[in-house]
Amino acid sequence: MPQVAIFMGSLSDEEKVAPCAQVLRDLGISFTFTITSAHRTPERTVQLMEECEAGGVQVYICAAGMAAHLAGAVAARTIRPVIGIPIAGNALAGMDALFSTVQMPPGFPVGTVATDKAGAKNAAWMAAQILALNDAALAEKLRAARAAFKADVDKAAASLHDKYGA
Amino acid sequence: MPQVAIFMGSLSDEEKVAPCAQVLRDLGISFTFTITSAHRTPERTVQLMEECEAGGVQVYICAAGMAAHLAGAVAARTIRPVIGIPIAGNALAGMDALFSTVQMPPGFPVGTVATDKAGAKNAAWMAAQILALNDAALAEKLRAARAAFKADVDKAAASLHDKYGA
Amino acid sequence: MPQVAIFMGSLSDEEKVAPCAQVLRDLGISFTFTITSAHRTPERTVQLMEECEAGGVQVYICAAGMAAHLAGAVAARTIRPVIGIPIAGNALAGMDALFSTVQMPPGFPVGTVATDKAGAKNAAWMAAQILALNDAALAEKLRAARAAFKADVDKAAASLHDKYGA
Amino acid sequence: MPQVAIFMGSLSDEEKVAPCAQVLRDLGISFTFTITSAHRTPERTVQLMEECEAGGVQVYICAAGMAAHLAGAVAARTIRPVIGIPIAGNALAGMDALFSTVQMPPGFPVGTVATDKAGAKNAAWMAAQILALNDAALAEKLRAARAAFKADVDKAAASLHDKYGA
Amino acid sequence: MPQVAIFMGSLSDEEKVAPCAQVLRDLGISFTFTITSAHRTPERTVQLMEECEAGGVQVYICAAGMAAHLAGAVAARTIRPVIGIPIAGNALAGMDALFSTVQMPPGFPVGTVATDKAGAKNAAWMAAQILALNDAALAEKLRAARAAFKADVDKAAASLHDKYGA
Amino acid sequence: MPQVAIFMGSLSDEEKVAPCAQVLRDLGISFTFTITSAHRTPERTVQLMEECEAGGVQVYICAAGMAAHLAGAVAARTIRPVIGIPIAGNALAGMDALFSTVQMPPGFPVGTVATDKAGAKNAAWMAAQILALNDAALAEKLRAARAAFKADVDKAAASLHDKYGA
Amino acid sequence: MPQVAIFMGSLSDEEKVAPCAQVLRDLGISFTFTITSAHRTPERTVQLMEECEAGGVQVYICAAGMAAHLAGAVAARTIRPVIGIPIAGNALAGMDALFSTVQMPPGFPVGTVATDKAGAKNAAWMAAQILALNDAALAEKLRAARAAFKADVDKAAASLHDKYGA
Amino acid sequence: MPQVAIFMGSLSDEEKVAPCAQVLRDLGISFTFTITSAHRTPERTVQLMEECEAGGVQVYICAAGMAAHLAGAVAARTIRPVIGIPIAGNALAGMDALFSTVQMPPGFPVGTVATDKAGAKNAAWMAAQILALNDAALAEKLRAARAAFKADVDKAAASLHDKYGA
Repeated sequence: MPQVAIFMGSLSDEEKVAPCAQVLRDLGISFTFTITSAHRTPERTVQLMEECEAGGVQVYICAAGMAAHLAGAVAARTIRPVIGIPIAGNALAGMDALFSTVQMPPGFPVGTVATDKAGAKNAAWMAAQILALNDAALAEKLRAARAAFKADVDKAAASLHDKYGA
Repeated sequence: MPQVAIFMGSLSDEEKVAPCAQVLRDLGISFTFTITSAHRTPERTVQLMEECEAGGVQVYICAAGMAAHLAGAVAARTIRPVIGIPIAGNALAGMDALFSTVQMPPGFPVGTVATDKAGAKNAAWMAAQILALNDAALAEKLRAARAAFKADVDKAAASLHDKYGA
Repeated sequence: MPQVAIFMGSLSDEEKVAPCAQVLRDLGISFTFTITSAHRTPERTVQLMEECEAGGVQVYICAAGMAAHLAGAVAARTIRPVIGIPIAGNALAGMDALFSTVQMPPGFPVGTVATDKAGAKNAAWMAAQILALNDAALAEKLRAARAAFKADVDKAAASLHDKYGA
Repeated sequence: MPQVAIFMGSLSDEEKVAPCAQVLRDLGISFTFTITSAHRTPERTVQLMEECEAGGVQVYICAAGMAAHLAGAVAARTIRPVIGIPIAGNALAGMDALFSTVQMPPGFPVGTVATDKAGAKNAAWMAAQILALNDAALAEKLRAARAAFKADVDKAAASLHDKYGA
Repeated sequence: MPQVAIFMGSLSDEEKVAPCAQVLRDLGISFTFTITSAHRTPERTVQLMEECEAGGVQVYICAAGMAAHLAGAVAARTIRPVIGIPIAGNALAGMDALFSTVQMPPGFPVGTVATDKAGAKNAAWMAAQILALNDAALAEKLRAARAAFKADVDKAAASLHDKYGA
Repeated sequence: MPQVAIFMGSLSDEEKVAPCAQVLRDLGISFTFTITSAHRTPERTVQLMEECEAGGVQVYICAAGMAAHLAGAVAARTIRPVIGIPIAGNALAGMDALFSTVQMPPGFPVGTVATDKAGAKNAAWMAAQILALNDAALAEKLRAARAAFKADVDKAAASLHDKYGA
Repeated sequence: MPQVAIFMGSLSDEEKVAPCAQVLRDLGISFTFTITSAHRTPERTVQLMEECEAGGVQVYICAAGMAAHLAGAVAARTIRPVIGIPIAGNALAGMDALFSTVQMPPGFPVGTVATDKAGAKNAAWMAAQILALNDAALAEKLRAARAAFKADVDKAAASLHDKYGA
Repeated sequence: MPQVAIFMGSLSDEEKVAPCAQVLRDLGISFTFTITSAHRTPERTVQLMEECEAGGVQVYICAAGMAAHLAGAVAARTIRPVIGIPIAGNALAGMDALFSTVQMPPGFPVGTVATDKAGAKNAAWMAAQILALNDAALAEKLRAARAAFKADVDKAAASLHDKYGA
């Protein structure tokens, strides 16, 4: 059974959400990645969650745009951590999805990450951080990733130095 | 069985939502007015809706603040018209509730009205307009209300004239 | 005589509003679709409405951008339900049209749906929901549409599963 | 016949709009100040405008909140200059009234001034500036007002100097 | 001497402001159209205004983006009407230019019109409305333009009718 | 050693953040609650974190207003989950703290919850959810809390029913 | 001659701006603090600046609300550093003053600080930082202030510890 | 040792930040231009700053997007002036970076300039203004640049005049 369930509200968001799956895969975290909608398929959402709960999914990740209710609908039906990725559309500058995801009432938190691709990656990183609390090998990978981020900055700085000599 | 169901997400919104019930009562429209939450009581919401659907409720009115998912949760489970009232909180200037209510995906409309008390009244008026399509007596009341609105303006204009003489 | 009247403020919004007409057509709902402007042609708006009222139009749908007054101008002159579609322009992120459409004063509701194409479709769906209160065959089509939405999600989920195997 | 017509959408805005009347009075500009609503009394609005047009009103000033359509409704029915005062409400931080007033389509300008009291005063000042183009005595008053503004600043600066000695 | 002075803050805004000049030209209103900046060339702005004031310019139109101070700088130095066109940039959705233009303090109004091209046209239309108060021939042109706007809508409606047959 | 560390940027936020501590206490979760600032005491922040990391803190909760950098500063120095509470101030409607907290770059997630008190509670609930993944007794408490939330709604609904009889 | 000039647009902002004067006084930095307005007293602004420039003022601090042009007007007339304090009003959540102050065109920077009192203090701190580049004693005071900030946090943390024992 | 240090949060912002380096180079101001991240490389940031502080860097310029904490992280560790450039991303219209940069708490100012390229240039201009307080030759260059800005406007005005003859 997978450790993480990624739910995405619409196939049209795949490009923005795919980096979430990629980070999980790179970290060797098992996951399911499917489409369900708080509005179009409320029963499917409930049924998927029952399977996930029964199967022992540890963390939920939900990505949705506009009136992004998916993370909230999931949070209402689990006591496991739920992470929300707001997907920005053309109008309202992404504030619609962000506000809809983050402003949850007391007792039903959605840990909301950044909009779009950066958030998709961070949802995966946050899920990994949660799982790493009880997985020393995964924690080690997270520390290694941090070192890699630093190395990336060093490399970028070097390339900038070559160009500007400053 | 009532014609309209008013669902409110939290008792703390009662002051803002009460005018909705008042308008319906003044128009002689039967209604139920209760509290249910998309997040705290998703099963209660579903169960209330099953009762309402079975009982022949014609129009749903949902009021909620913050990540206002209630109207959407209702819209996902009925093909009857759903009207949403965004309740503004302190932060984010009410944009959170408005955007969460109005930006619904195709197939699951929430007819969103203004924020707070003005919207609470308008939710009732819109429900009445929908019901009046098949209720000539109610339509007559709506026309009378329009006349009363005009009279209110006339009276206000007269009082202003007394004060400014202009 | 048509059941629904779609008014659009400007020919330049046709691409965004066309899905509204398409949904109505698919559902077999008769409609008129024309251009009139609250500002450029206030008399035409009034005259069109007189014809629509006389002809028994049941629901009005109004799409406009910027200071989107069209839905409000229509709402001021009918007791039938009015649905507003805010069309986002380049500046102000669509908040201009949304706020102008939704923030109506008490007594003159505009049931506002999402911005742009999603809203255009939802205006049609909401009009259908209203009409279906007294049209069992239409209600059946709406229920069938819901089933089709679910099937779409299932198909999308299957295609995602093929790709990610998760 | 008055030179300026002030239309206010609701008696509840009187406190914010009164400074407009006061500035006009101080400048000796004749005006009418009444209540009419784009939505509650569209016919009254049209009729008032016909009287104003026939009577030779030169400038219109319209104050409204929320989906502030009044200035636009007036602008649609005159070729005389229209000035709009956006009245801020509790939600949406006044952006609703501002965007609804200013974002008019080509051909139907509303010269929009600041929100609330500052705007109410400025609507009067702008009307005076327009009238002063053909009224040398009024122009002289405007120049004197500018001198008074400067004197006010000098006085305020002196009081600050007394306090801070700097 | 020209009746209207158009000041633009930057040559890069020419495409958006050009429709302003075009409308004035079409109406036979004389104008000057130049570039000056509240910040880059404050003395030039003052000097241009002295020439305009001496020459009898009746109305000022100022277009600027970002922290759009140009209209305010002009308004501070004339008692003639000033119209502001907010030019939207990439960031902040045009709210920067709009808020900077419209929120003027009491005594120094800037009649602000819509953002970008629609506003550029409307600045010209508003200037024409002001001038037409004392120019019957121009007033006649404005009435004719209104008729042309109506005809445009009729034509657009006809083309839509051909397409949708509704 | 505590399981959770609550960091608050300023003593002035205590009233808004206190409910976070209360929820943790009610759930029997050990925590430290102190003040540190990303800007005023960066070394203290680093030192506190070193102690927390050494002591085995599992989850960090950071509350801050304005340019709310505290959660990000903590997230940069741990691979444990970090939850951010945006505290709204007077200006900018709380968007400053929300955007500053949530928009973290890839690799450094901050699970952001709602603004102010609701968010303070939710930060505690989310921390509890994370800890409950490996604490069956705590999970049981969370399930009980959900039941209590439902009971609260039932009670509120009953009180509303008493009042409205509907 | 003073090292810093504080210009405030209106006496009504004194309460919010006074902390700026207080910080400068505490640091022993000489300053002038007066009122001038970009719009009401453009000549006074220019004249004050000529005196300041002649007298060797090193840094300008400008506080203004709404369409806050004062800092920009000053920046246009000096090559010395200009710091802007946006004063939030009731409407538009302070975004008007912030955007008007910060979005300056290339070549005319205004170093903008936070809104209201926090910004007033920070304008003084930034001025001090600039002056301290060539004033070792002042730099020492700034370092001492940093130590005091840290001590404040320690004290606040202690008081919180007494209360929560955590 | 360089006078100015430019820190950029991510190589992807190079195109927007490069104009900052260009302005400094044109003015003959020595600078270092490198990449460091408040989150990815907090130690590198601290270490770079220690080198800069030791080497006598006078002014820091920090450019970052999203939750732009870099300028604040630098401001927390120096008493030298820090200038922040907010880089706008796709979502949230650049308000995220602007609010995160400017809303600093008392004692830790970040002099924030405009978003993106205009701000990048202005950061350099502001740094130059600060350095010019003690560098007469640089002050002379700044005055010359002002003259060049004026000449640019004259040239642009001439080209516009050729085109419009007005």
